[in-house]
Amino acid sequence: MAAESQTPQVDQVQRSPVNFDAKLSLISEQWSPRVVAEMNDYQFKIVRIEGDFVWHRHDDTDEAFLVLDGTLRIDMRDRSVLVRAGELFVVSKGVEHKPFAQEEVKLLLIEPRGVLNTGNTESERTAPNDVWI
Amino acid sequence: MAAESQTPQVDQVQRSPVNFDAKLSLISEQWSPRVVAEMNDYQFKIVRIEGDFVWHRHDDTDEAFLVLDGTLRIDMRDRSVLVRAGELFVVSKGVEHKPFAQEEVKLLLIEPRGVLNTGNTESERTAPNDVWI
Repeated sequence: MAAESQTPQVDQVQRSPVNFDAKLSLISEQWSPRVVAEMNDYQFKIVRIEGDFVWHRHDDTDEAFLVLDGTLRIDMRDRSVLVRAGELFVVSKGVEHKPFAQEEVKLLLIEPRGVLNTGNTESERTAPNDVWI
Repeated sequence: MAAESQTPQVDQVQRSPVNFDAKLSLISEQWSPRVVAEMNDYQFKIVRIEGDFVWHRHDDTDEAFLVLDGTLRIDMRDRSVLVRAGELFVVSKGVEHKPFAQEEVKLLLIEPRGVLNTGNTESERTAPNDVWI
């Protein structure tokens, strides 16, 4: 298992399949996405979240949430959806949203490289990008 | 649950989270990818496979395999990898590969819209594109 690193190690990391449970076991910090794989200019990121995020939007891209464990609520201005383990939800670009997790949720995020987790909103939740695990 | 259709119904389908088990229960045919969601110009496709696929490559794109159930073997010319449920593997563009499933595997594929399942190889396994479920 590769040690956590600030440096993308695509060739090395992507030689082997990514096991989500194994990768998640390496992180305990919440709200800190970690890149586990890349596909073209897209990244797969795992993250643990609990509690309330900030309202934000991504003006240039859709964002995919695939729930690995727990139940995620995604609030939008006109409605909310519950996304459970084994479910996928895509937030369309430009749509304001706010993820919320009553209990810890383990997520796989899929989005273009370089997308900031808080989108247009600077916040204490804003996490560094391109941190691989 | 939306009925199977040849016509993309992105707005309608993507209003709700996609439940992979529920979608898979709607298909029994193997080797026939079905689109369940889109993110920008990428598609998420579910597919049941069993047995041997054909050697092929995608010259213009990486391809992501996320195993939902079963154990997938991906043969490449220089090595093979086993991808189990809860694991993700990205085949780099240009790399010849051949998926194989000893017993039925349920997969989520992620790749750009328009990618043909058999890549550069025309075969009886070549499936129509853009079939939503």
